[in-house]
Amino acid sequence: MTVKLTPTLELAFDLMQRRSVTPIDAGCQQLMMDRLGAVGFKHEEMRFDDTDNLWSRRGTEGPLVCFAGHTDVVPTGPEGNWTYPPFEPQIHDGLLYGRGAADMKGSIASFMIATENFVKEHPDHKGSIAYLITSDEEGPAKNGTVKVIETLEARGEKIDMCIVGEPSSTTDTGDTIKNGRRGSLGCVLTVKGIQGHVAYPQLARNPIHDVAPALAEMTAETWDNGNDFFPATSFQISNINSGTGATNVIPGDCVVTFNFRFSTELTAEILKERTEAIFAKHNLDYDIDWNLSGQPFLTSSGSLVDATVAAIKTVTGIDTELSTAGGTSDGRFIAPTGSQVIELGPRNATIHKVDECVEAEDLNILATIYQRILENLLLDTQ
Amino acid sequence: MTVKLTPTLELAFDLMQRRSVTPIDAGCQQLMMDRLGAVGFKHEEMRFDDTDNLWSRRGTEGPLVCFAGHTDVVPTGPEGNWTYPPFEPQIHDGLLYGRGAADMKGSIASFMIATENFVKEHPDHKGSIAYLITSDEEGPAKNGTVKVIETLEARGEKIDMCIVGEPSSTTDTGDTIKNGRRGSLGCVLTVKGIQGHVAYPQLARNPIHDVAPALAEMTAETWDNGNDFFPATSFQISNINSGTGATNVIPGDCVVTFNFRFSTELTAEILKERTEAIFAKHNLDYDIDWNLSGQPFLTSSGSLVDATVAAIKTVTGIDTELSTAGGTSDGRFIAPTGSQVIELGPRNATIHKVDECVEAEDLNILATIYQRILENLLLDTQ
Ligand SMILES: [Zn+2]
Ligand SMILES: [Zn+2]
Repeated sequence: MTVKLTPTLELAFDLMQRRSVTPIDAGCQQLMMDRLGAVGFKHEEMRFDDTDNLWSRRGTEGPLVCFAGHTDVVPTGPEGNWTYPPFEPQIHDGLLYGRGAADMKGSIASFMIATENFVKEHPDHKGSIAYLITSDEEGPAKNGTVKVIETLEARGEKIDMCIVGEPSSTTDTGDTIKNGRRGSLGCVLTVKGIQGHVAYPQLARNPIHDVAPALAEMTAETWDNGNDFFPATSFQISNINSGTGATNVIPGDCVVTFNFRFSTELTAEILKERTEAIFAKHNLDYDIDWNLSGQPFLTSSGSLVDATVAAIKTVTGIDTELSTAGGTSDGRFIAPTGSQVIELGPRNATIHKVDECVEAEDLNILATIYQRILENLLLDTQ
Repeated sequence: MTVKLTPTLELAFDLMQRRSVTPIDAGCQQLMMDRLGAVGFKHEEMRFDDTDNLWSRRGTEGPLVCFAGHTDVVPTGPEGNWTYPPFEPQIHDGLLYGRGAADMKGSIASFMIATENFVKEHPDHKGSIAYLITSDEEGPAKNGTVKVIETLEARGEKIDMCIVGEPSSTTDTGDTIKNGRRGSLGCVLTVKGIQGHVAYPQLARNPIHDVAPALAEMTAETWDNGNDFFPATSFQISNINSGTGATNVIPGDCVVTFNFRFSTELTAEILKERTEAIFAKHNLDYDIDWNLSGQPFLTSSGSLVDATVAAIKTVTGIDTELSTAGGTSDGRFIAPTGSQVIELGPRNATIHKVDECVEAEDLNILATIYQRILENLLLDTQ
């Protein structure tokens, strides 16, 4: 099967050839500026520490529709494990292979072609279009979207509707959009005991014995039952480590790492209180270090969801599903400003893996859907 | 205070100067053979793999009273941390300093002087006296006492009464003797789960979540209530390790190491059954590796205990206490042959530590007690 190299695919190739492993941008944003500048966008480069970020806007009026995404990609691992070199994009049997094909240089190419086509056809569209692009989404996410949003907030510049290009689809392009995400609350717990010899437990305090019943209670707890938009809050222990390696020594401490993915039924504060109440009940002597990496957010309805659902239906015939499942995205930084936020991108089966790929045709379909969303939102006659 | 260098202390010095870190004997056993040979002992050197062992006996009749001990010492750690060089024994303020002073070259010197004096005074004593000496007590204990006992058992040579020189005393020399030890049953448990992402727990199986309630139940369990001779069986977890280090990954397995110190109310088989019943109840998917490192043993009464209690009372005025507390010793290998076994040695406060030391005078007292035990057991006229 020969695949025609559409403008979307050509741009995807161009972006994917750049070795933009987090936090390196490798010229992707410059390429975007060149193209967007040619159709009337004004740019602001916002570099924070080691991270290149781009804020680019066409128009000054509201409503402001923003495409958000990232030019960085996750590391490839040993390139020899790939069937095709990860930074030499190529199409085989209709699949576009290469790092970033699905997450998310493909989406960015589709954003761009959708925007170019829309602006050429409707140079006098109402409202504004913007791009919020970072190169640290896959890393610590400290110097990217969160800082750009702080800058915009400080000067009162408001995004009304935001389309994040994260790969959201499951079986067919557009079958699922994310209209929210669970919150993520992490914790490192250090339970303190008193080291000793297993033959003299009365002289020691075993922190593993102290923590085991507390963890048993945490795992058995129903934190909430979720709601119409969110699955039930989940608690997962990712690491537990204690012991000197010797089999006859009672260890002096035990370190446990755990994480909540939580719904809008709860807050981080409530989770902390309920957790520490369980630890107190079990008389733990402990230090605790909480890390709230994202509040839950939800765009349950409104013009953006309506426009997106309609665009997908028009272009593909699919009745899309709204979902809040899965991991975090930079949407968590944008939603708190009051913006409507949805995530729509290609299928996510191969992201972060060897031989990352996407159906080449899906990027063309996505470009058409994105363009249709702009038409639904920024044309009076729609 | 100037301490007179008695023959016991001179011999202790001679032994302690030898760098006999497990499994090295460093000539200690040769020194013992020279001295014991001079008073009528016949030796058998029993080397197994890297370990020197000595079986030395005077007489052919029963009852056979055996002194058991070890010439090896635990490592010193950085010698610069010691106030006095660990292999240059010296006496300061009445304390004999050096590695092995308490555990147990001091006891061996006291054994030897007691034996020499007894044999010189009573060359025609009844029964026999023997020495069972190894150089691997502080190590894996695979090629030492256990192998000597196997050799003796194979040829039908029976120890009737055995005095192990491990440091048993608490506040005053002779205040405590060990007339038994708890059993020690170790276990390495590997709980198997399915690795996954914390955002998708339904696709994973968290082994920490599986094992936590089982461990909580193990720590809450009353395994027995002990008996007149043994404290209650104790369960201690020494190590638990699980996790990839990443905070967003559900680990694939969890490894737990634990140990039972158990009384004669239970057997290793019963502990295994009860443990695995708890694991089955919690539906664990696991591999398990049990290691029985010692059966419990007890010499609750009889001629050896009577002779020892009486000797301590005669020499020191102390009513000694019988105890089965504390760690394992090579007595665990000797008791199963049917021998009476007690442990009597100096105070144990500094064993295995930097600046190991013992009251110099205590070794002289010990020699007198050991000699009195021989008199109580091997003289008709006593
Ligand atoms: Zn992404
Ligand atoms: Zn010892």
